[in-house]
Amino acid sequence: MEVLSEAARLEAEGRRIIHMEVGQPGAPAPVAAREAAIRALEDGRIGYTQALGIPSLRQGLSRHYLATYGVEVPEARIAVTTGSSAGFNLIFLAAFNPGDRIVLTSPGYPAYRNILKALGLVPVEVEVGEDSRWSLTPEHLEAARRDGPVHGVLVASPANPTGTMMTPEALEALVTYCDREGIWFISDEIYHGLVYQGTQETALRFSDRAIIINSFSKYFCMTGWRIGWMVLPEDLVRPVEKLTQSLYISAPGLSQVAAEAALGAGRELEIVKAGYAANRKLLLDGLPKIGFDKLLPVDGAFYVYADISRFTNDSLAFTKAMLAEAGVAGTPGADFDQINGARFMRLSFAGTTGDMETALAALGAWLR
Amino acid sequence: MEVLSEAARLEAEGRRIIHMEVGQPGAPAPVAAREAAIRALEDGRIGYTQALGIPSLRQGLSRHYLATYGVEVPEARIAVTTGSSAGFNLIFLAAFNPGDRIVLTSPGYPAYRNILKALGLVPVEVEVGEDSRWSLTPEHLEAARRDGPVHGVLVASPANPTGTMMTPEALEALVTYCDREGIWFISDEIYHGLVYQGTQETALRFSDRAIIINSFSKYFCMTGWRIGWMVLPEDLVRPVEKLTQSLYISAPGLSQVAAEAALGAGRELEIVKAGYAANRKLLLDGLPKIGFDKLLPVDGAFYVYADISRFTNDSLAFTKAMLAEAGVAGTPGADFDQINGARFMRLSFAGTTGDMETALAALGAWLR
Repeated sequence: MEVLSEAARLEAEGRRIIHMEVGQPGAPAPVAAREAAIRALEDGRIGYTQALGIPSLRQGLSRHYLATYGVEVPEARIAVTTGSSAGFNLIFLAAFNPGDRIVLTSPGYPAYRNILKALGLVPVEVEVGEDSRWSLTPEHLEAARRDGPVHGVLVASPANPTGTMMTPEALEALVTYCDREGIWFISDEIYHGLVYQGTQETALRFSDRAIIINSFSKYFCMTGWRIGWMVLPEDLVRPVEKLTQSLYISAPGLSQVAAEAALGAGRELEIVKAGYAANRKLLLDGLPKIGFDKLLPVDGAFYVYADISRFTNDSLAFTKAMLAEAGVAGTPGADFDQINGARFMRLSFAGTTGDMETALAALGAWLR
Repeated sequence: MEVLSEAARLEAEGRRIIHMEVGQPGAPAPVAAREAAIRALEDGRIGYTQALGIPSLRQGLSRHYLATYGVEVPEARIAVTTGSSAGFNLIFLAAFNPGDRIVLTSPGYPAYRNILKALGLVPVEVEVGEDSRWSLTPEHLEAARRDGPVHGVLVASPANPTGTMMTPEALEALVTYCDREGIWFISDEIYHGLVYQGTQETALRFSDRAIIINSFSKYFCMTGWRIGWMVLPEDLVRPVEKLTQSLYISAPGLSQVAAEAALGAGRELEIVKAGYAANRKLLLDGLPKIGFDKLLPVDGAFYVYADISRFTNDSLAFTKAMLAEAGVAGTPGADFDQINGARFMRLSFAGTTGDMETALAALGAWLR
């Protein structure tokens, strides 16, 4: 937030700032999605929908699982949500009781911790590192359970802020362990579709009990539309439906119509993704040359997470100086990791390739 | 829900059903709102917005308070929300601690109770009746406090399901009492703008500590857009902003753009309201003649809440029979009142005047 408001202040003064702090695509929603929304607006009323979403969107998502992963998911187990944010809220309320302990990875997306705390649940943050290729393992869970019972595990793969993805084997081992031990496994698959190396696998491949959170925000470029979905084990469908009726009524109607059209916009979205891939290559070539030489594996998403300990042990101060002096905004690691974050910085490559080139030159000159 | 799905089943069989069970306007969003949304879609990306909403929308809402009520509300105290649903979630989390007791009226909107329970708060339902013109009074609160502490009070005026509105004097007495006793007063003003008799007053007139929940769903005909707002006491603004960042990120961007345009669509919306007023007059004339002769005061909203105890003491069975035999869908009172609801039924007049005429004829024939 400090970096965001300082960047805005500098821009108001006329400075050119490269935004590598943002967690959202620069591209708009696919043309087909926007056209579907315009047609719906011309047709008339945008009313409440069924709590679990428009049937044709749920059917489309069911087909998406078959086409993308070869996994059969009945539409009855799919719930359309007001972004992945609503997915987290709903599943935390549906699956857990106050005081329940849920394991998260550190580094990780800070909203997980904040939502859990707001709802009276207990986040148990487990530091992951290079030894497990930044993945959570059954051994981590065994260790966490020595301090108290664990009721759920929430993992993102590819992850924010690291862009690192679990291997299918690591994911299977974790899902299988949770299933056997009666621990809910929540898989945040919001960066699926944006994978550059390794094999993307849904947790559904390994268990019908896995809870999947996903969204149209990242791959489908629809952040501000606030539209996502969940795949639920059968016995959680009705609890989630009832909670949705009270807490949300339904996801935004227009966004549901647009999202359904977006499912068919693969050609356009693959072009956007090719832009990220070009940016990624540019950064993976260029960043080590200017001194950012310790990067986590950039398997997916649109983030580089850099160990900057050769420059600083205060990434907030470093990020502020980088913004003021090089005109490049990044995100200090402390936002994602309360223990080691001061040694890390996240750079987003969701912007244009031209911006990435400018940023590399500016950062190179600044670090020299 | 049972009535809704039975109505859908009958329609699938080809039966004509008059929908007086729905709580949403039949009209679409104002033309200006839909045009603003189309322009935004043509312009490009719909991204996240500030957590508390687009500044120009917050400014527009500030002007709305001055124009509508003559009350000055700084935009800094206005939070744009994902419908009033998000307003309730956010304020319950921001203002209360688990186990806190919040007084609701019975009859009342069932989601209040459900959201409170989902968040670990305790709804304290107080039966209101004809003696206080169906309004909650300081005396009711005094009585409720004998059973345990009361941390908040939530009142809707005009109310759902009754359409009955508190007089300015009754509202002032309740707000003043809560202020003096350190009880949060939450005023659900979602049916403001739809008032046919009496004086509509915002709780802000009587206290800067009152919490206002409102929405573009009803007067502005934007249910499916999921867009609303709150007015907050200064010390709750930052807590609500932080919770919004984690739980919602922001309200849907396109809906915010459209809502801002809707604020200027008064001429179109007053025509919609005139339709409700005509429907209301028709029902207030016609319903007593066919036997529904005990109606609560229909001051506002688009509901008639009828005491049907001369016909039944099981309003669910009555409503089902009415649907099957007269083709008119209503809502049984048990949805709104766990004690006396079996003697009541809610009829919505948000449909067309033609539908109201058809319904009156069908109900008259059926009751005979």
